[in-house]
Parts: sequence; structure tokens; C-alpha cells
Amino acid sequence: MELFFEKNNIISLNDRKRKAFINSLSGFKSLNLIGTADANGSTNLAIFNSVFHLGANPALMGFIIRPDSVERHTLSNILETGSYTINHVNSHIYKSAHQTSARYPKTISEFEATNLNPEFKNGFSAPFVKESVIKIGLEFRQRLDIALNNTILIIGEIIQVYCPAECMGNDGFLNIEKAGTLAGIGLDSYHTTTLVDRLSYAKPDKPLTSVVTEYQA
Amino acid sequence: MELFFEKNNIISLNDRKRKAFINSLSGFKSLNLIGTADANGSTNLAIFNSVFHLGANPALMGFIIRPDSVERHTLSNILETGSYTINHVNSHIYKSAHQTSARYPKTISEFEATNLNPEFKNGFSAPFVKESVIKIGLEFRQRLDIALNNTILIIGEIIQVYCPAECMGNDGFLNIEKAGTLAGIGLDSYHTTTLVDRLSYAKPDKPLTSVVTEYQA
Repeated sequence: MELFFEKNNIISLNDRKRKAFINSLSGFKSLNLIGTADANGSTNLAIFNSVFHLGANPALMGFIIRPDSVERHTLSNILETGSYTINHVNSHIYKSAHQTSARYPKTISEFEATNLNPEFKNGFSAPFVKESVIKIGLEFRQRLDIALNNTILIIGEIIQVYCPAECMGNDGFLNIEKAGTLAGIGLDSYHTTTLVDRLSYAKPDKPLTSVVTEYQA
Repeated sequence: MELFFEKNNIISLNDRKRKAFINSLSGFKSLNLIGTADANGSTNLAIFNSVFHLGANPALMGFIIRPDSVERHTLSNILETGSYTINHVNSHIYKSAHQTSARYPKTISEFEATNLNPEFKNGFSAPFVKESVIKIGLEFRQRLDIALNNTILIIGEIIQVYCPAECMGNDGFLNIEKAGTLAGIGLDSYHTTTLVDRLSYAKPDKPLTSVVTEYQA
């Protein structure tokens, strides 16, 4: 049976149910740990499911912050230092990653609380997550305040990338499935993935073909 | 072996390789078809992998548009009519969905070109995708221009939702995996998913538990 919700049905759901429902609607979500440090070097780590690709040239990524949540430490550290890391969540660390969403006081680092290890590499000032397989170091570029619901879009430029050689295709594609990266639904659901196919660049009068063998990632 | 890329290594990749690489880095992506019509009723359909959850109250979703791409018809239709639909891509339609990214002239509807069927429901002016299992009708709320790379963030409010009753948990969670929704990597890779677990709300001094059985979606 198909359910039909109108705006009024959505508004009349209780807060928790509406949050779970609406959070499921955008499709599968990226799962990343964002690592930061304040000016004194105190580290912070928080899981985000809103990181998205913004552009390849310059190489930009965006994510959404809710300033009244546990994410406020991530925000203040990024604005203070200008640096942060984005680290893919995989099946070995998803429980620890989820646990970083608990409301710890500023004096407790989520790294210590969750047994994930900070890793400082090649002069980058923000901590990477040692247990993550794909790690990205970014410099803060822009903050866009979204007045509609008091959220903030943070945009950063990719400065460093660490990834397994065996996951990279000869066309530049990175097979994050092979690297064990998970996908998410809503606020609490974790999923492995299975490749269906990679398809050729679409043109109006040309049939699509599979490019998996051609690019071998 | 771990590969290490610095900003200069990324810049020196050729355009196609950099695009494939950087597009893989944000993690798994949502896969949605955005349906629109212009003021004369001519329909348009385009695949987007940047739709994200922005907030539950009001219920907002965002996505990124590149105005110099095939996405320009989607943009002009949304600005003209104020309405659009977001339709999950599933394993039965991913090839047709991918094909909508071909550069068709404005006179050809991607619905016709790809054998996907427009569906008009409950007075909503933009076309839904009949073959999609989860369909969302939105009203345009805000446009944010991102000067860093000439992209545009389009924000809309959810006005209608269609989804299968058997996919909805008693907590409001929608099991989009059960509905057949796919996840994406980069620009051309399509994936099914398998649930690992749903975890309880995280608190500092409480162990996480599985909530799959409790919420039964």
C-alpha cells in the first residue's frame, strides 16, 4: 500500500517521528567523521551525514552544521583554525563513529571517549582518524548561513587526500565500496553496498554500456 | 599501499580524472530524479546525486545545480513554477535515470527519451516519476549562489510524500533499502545496500544497542 503525506500530515507528526521520517527521504547519505582541534590542540570528532561534493575545480566539499547541537565544537574549531578533516566511516568503526554523536563536554575528546585514534600527517594541523581508510584534509573557504532553519553550510577546499592505491581506477574513480565505506539512512542506520554497475557517459543517441572492466577500480 | 595527494597533485590531474576522483571523495551519494515542468507544461527530468537533508521542521531538502550543465532546464523550470519533485532511483530504473544526464534539446522531454512515465498526483503541478517507489513534491524556498565555483544551492520545502506503508517503521524511519533505493559513487556508479545495523540514540555513558527489532521498518 502507498502512503500519502501532505504538508499538514508532516507537521502534525511528533518531533521525533518527523525527524526520523524526513531524515530518511533524501536517499542514501554519506557517513563521515569530521576531525578538528582548537587553538590549544584539544581535539574533537563528530559524525556527519551531510557531507557532499560541491565541485572538482577547485576541489570543494560542503556540509551542514546545526549550531545548537553537539556539532557546535566542530564549528568553533573550524572557524578558529581554518582546518578540518573528513574521514570515511567503515564497518570496523561505525559504532564508535555513531557514539561521537553523544553530547560530551568540551573537556572530553570524542577520540578518547570512543577509542578512535587521532593521526597527524604531513604537517596538517587537524587530526585525521587513524582507523579510517579514506581521509581528506580541508581548508575552510566559506560559511553560508541558511536563515530558513538556522543551519550553516560550511565549504572547504581539499588540501590532502589519503586513499588505498588498490581502490583507484585508471580513470581517477575511487572505489569507496572496496575501501569499506558505509552508506547511511536517516540518523542511525548503517549499510554496506554492492556494485550494480558503472555506466558510460550518457549521450542522446548512444546506448549506455558498462565501464567496470574498462576502468578497473 | 596508501596514496597521498596534495593540492598540487590534485590540480595537475587532467580534468576528467580530477572530476572522477573528487566526485568519489564525499562518500556514498543519494540518487534522485528531479522532475519539473515549464509554464507551458513541457516536462523535464534529470538525475541528481547532490540532494541532501537540510532540516525536519520545516521539512527542507537542498541540492546543488551547475547552471552550465544539462541541469539548466531543471533550474529554469523551478524558478518559473516554484515546484519540483524528487524521486528515488531504484534498481529497475537506474539505466533510464543515468540516461537523463545526456544533453537533450529543450524540445525533447527526458521522460519520453528514457521511457520513464510522468505522473501527476493530488493537484501537484510538477511531474512525479511513476516508476519511482519514493516520491516527494517540493515547493521552492530559497536560492543560494555559491560564488566560489558558480554553483547554486536550491532549497525546497516538502509538500507531498508518497512511500510504501511496508517500509515505514513505527518510529517514522523509512526503510529506503527495502524500497529498492540505490546509492551512488562518483558520477556513474550504482549500488544496492545491505543493512548492517540501526543504533540507539548515543549518550555519553550508555552503551549503544541495536534498534532494528524495536522499530521494525
